[in-house]
Amino acid sequence: MGSVNKGRGDSPLGEAWLVAVGDELLLGRIADTNSQEIARQLTARGVAVRGVTVVGDEVAAIGRALDATPSGALVILSGGLGPTPDDLTREAVAAWARVPVAESPPIAAFLRQRCAARGVAYGEGTARQAQLPAGLDWLANPVGSAPGLFGELGGRMLLLLPGVPSEMRPLLAEGLARLEAAGLPVARPAVLLRTAQVAESVLAALCDPLRQAAPELTWSWWLVRWGVDVRVSLPPGVVDGGRLAEAAAALRAALGVSVYADAMIDLPAVVQDLLTARAATVATAESCTAGLVSAALTDRAGASDCFLGGVVAYADRLKQDLVDVPAALLAAHGAVSGEVAGAMAAGIRARTGADYGLAVTGIAGPAGGGATKPVGTTWIACDARGHLHVRCYRFPADRGRNRQLAVAAALDTLRRVLRVDDDARAPWAELDTWSRP
Amino acid sequence: MGSVNKGRGDSPLGEAWLVAVGDELLLGRIADTNSQEIARQLTARGVAVRGVTVVGDEVAAIGRALDATPSGALVILSGGLGPTPDDLTREAVAAWARVPVAESPPIAAFLRQRCAARGVAYGEGTARQAQLPAGLDWLANPVGSAPGLFGELGGRMLLLLPGVPSEMRPLLAEGLARLEAAGLPVARPAVLLRTAQVAESVLAALCDPLRQAAPELTWSWWLVRWGVDVRVSLPPGVVDGGRLAEAAAALRAALGVSVYADAMIDLPAVVQDLLTARAATVATAESCTAGLVSAALTDRAGASDCFLGGVVAYADRLKQDLVDVPAALLAAHGAVSGEVAGAMAAGIRARTGADYGLAVTGIAGPAGGGATKPVGTTWIACDARGHLHVRCYRFPADRGRNRQLAVAAALDTLRRVLRVDDDARAPWAELDTWSRP
Repeated sequence: MGSVNKGRGDSPLGEAWLVAVGDELLLGRIADTNSQEIARQLTARGVAVRGVTVVGDEVAAIGRALDATPSGALVILSGGLGPTPDDLTREAVAAWARVPVAESPPIAAFLRQRCAARGVAYGEGTARQAQLPAGLDWLANPVGSAPGLFGELGGRMLLLLPGVPSEMRPLLAEGLARLEAAGLPVARPAVLLRTAQVAESVLAALCDPLRQAAPELTWSWWLVRWGVDVRVSLPPGVVDGGRLAEAAAALRAALGVSVYADAMIDLPAVVQDLLTARAATVATAESCTAGLVSAALTDRAGASDCFLGGVVAYADRLKQDLVDVPAALLAAHGAVSGEVAGAMAAGIRARTGADYGLAVTGIAGPAGGGATKPVGTTWIACDARGHLHVRCYRFPADRGRNRQLAVAAALDTLRRVLRVDDDARAPWAELDTWSRP
Repeated sequence: MGSVNKGRGDSPLGEAWLVAVGDELLLGRIADTNSQEIARQLTARGVAVRGVTVVGDEVAAIGRALDATPSGALVILSGGLGPTPDDLTREAVAAWARVPVAESPPIAAFLRQRCAARGVAYGEGTARQAQLPAGLDWLANPVGSAPGLFGELGGRMLLLLPGVPSEMRPLLAEGLARLEAAGLPVARPAVLLRTAQVAESVLAALCDPLRQAAPELTWSWWLVRWGVDVRVSLPPGVVDGGRLAEAAAALRAALGVSVYADAMIDLPAVVQDLLTARAATVATAESCTAGLVSAALTDRAGASDCFLGGVVAYADRLKQDLVDVPAALLAAHGAVSGEVAGAMAAGIRARTGADYGLAVTGIAGPAGGGATKPVGTTWIACDARGHLHVRCYRFPADRGRNRQLAVAAALDTLRRVLRVDDDARAPWAELDTWSRP
């Protein structure tokens, strides 16, 4: 990871503490992904998250976690707002702040309407969710029943969110927007560039002169599933004067075709959008990734507009039978070779009539490696309407991560081919992480 | 989730606090999965995890987190043991306990040897990892460089682990084993049964009479990727007298064929082992899961012994072209039908010569559903050497989760077919979650 902005906390709500509530967290049954999401959103606003506390469903423990936060702080709690008796966050917050809890008629009305619409009874559990600690306001839950709660209480600015991630997310967005009126910093001006096939070290070296030219900006980068994300932002208190736009333009130029997105969209969705915009189709032929490329291409709804299907030719015989790789090619070059990758890409394109054939064959490990083809050796081929692009990678990781890297490289290969107007012979920016052998 | 054991804390180290260290956690770049893993291991020993604190790479914050733990507690810290200047956990712990830090000759020797073996220089960063706070002992890292540290300091029993999960895990196991001499409870006698295709509510109802017959035991269950796990354990202080074995036998009988494992092995690995033991092979034909079943079957090394490959027939035309589903069948019944699922399973088996053909066709959503075939409708078929087993599911969730449920159901279908000695006509325990339409 690159340099990080530790935040300054010079806004009224410039520092935050998170409290995650739930026995299932302390028992190790689930990971606290909510706090990650909340921290990410706050970081994007230039709010410094100072700490996260995870406690069980226990009134006293929730109170102690609140006691440990400084007066004036923003405290975001997740979990414990559900309908069952072990959901205690509402009561714990009220007890800590010494305020009463009472039924909120508008929340009750909202919940009654929700029950009626679903044909279920308004039971005791649902009624518990209409309880509101005095002094807090509420947010209607668009996904589930538990309302979000927010407001100033006990000298802190509180936001209470349900623990179910799909309910937490929309209420977090809504809650943060509402807290802007109380001084929560708006999202800092920032530029995000998402890159694929660039090593973190290469990216850092590329950024270095740009950072030196704009030291007042905050530069950071980190590995994600599809590559490396880079973020340049204006720290709180720094006046822009066009420097962010200038730095972003320089960064964009330096990274070139390696940038696949400048917003939080994933690489498979980018590829799907490029294909759909061109009314083009793709089919896959996978060996070591065994369906992961196809699965990624269908993650998002609407995939059937551009994804036809493919084959998983794991056994060598199926490379012949399902995707027409000549036996002689396999015998001469081995299954993990540019020749076979190219034949797989061409074969699946011919079989399916897709515009693009995308193929992966490699050695994910831990076994199967040799002196000339070590574990991680992976060939990726794209047949773009008859133009064949083939490239070799040496992924450095274990089986699972090597497969993931191969999926990212395959999708990005198709993206680059689509970007350069379908001409697979066009030059690419040579910034790839894992390089040719 | 079912009833939980909040722990009793009557052993010397019967209660634990976790501290996760790292700016990347507070910035929301990664989730704190280490604390989940540590909490799970401690829970299995009957140790009650009382709280988790996440702090940044900052000496004072780490000290405050330690201050917040009670004297005599077990405190496990993860993160901040690496070679870079922002890895400060060693120094922070020493400063908090007011003990000096000095180079440990055995750690230095270990690290020098490690560098030599890899042909890299023993630099300043590596040397930092040889620094040991007075009073702590160390554990050699089998995966990376950062040693684990443990011992009594500042009135607490400490265990310091590196933050990289693949390094954390072996050092956690080793560290917990070493702490048994200091009174850490050994793993509680417990029985784990992993089930697939059983709804959590059905499972709870099945457990109910067994729990009433053995209330002194701790019963819990929770959703995982492949289904529901059930755990019955002997709480601290309860003498066994054969009651755990009795309850486990009754539970096993009640759950029947739904149990796919009684240890922490995943469903795809169980299927792989069953196939390999029978020297049998499988091939897949997937529509809505688009390669996820194939990918799961190849998660673990050794997959090529039993997995041949398959097709992803996403477009209906490919169901004809790649896996020989008759056009008339598609026209008469639609792509999401038992007839087409069966034809896909038979077709891929015929094409590949596999012993088993496994097929999935469904509507993952959010679009594509209708009155007779709502979103979530999914047919799974297994052609077992000519015996065809076909079943319909109605998964209740969103696109991503519906696909995941379909993968679990497909793998478990194959497992059940393999379990009942390859006779797909044999009766199954009818405990399925999502039921027939």
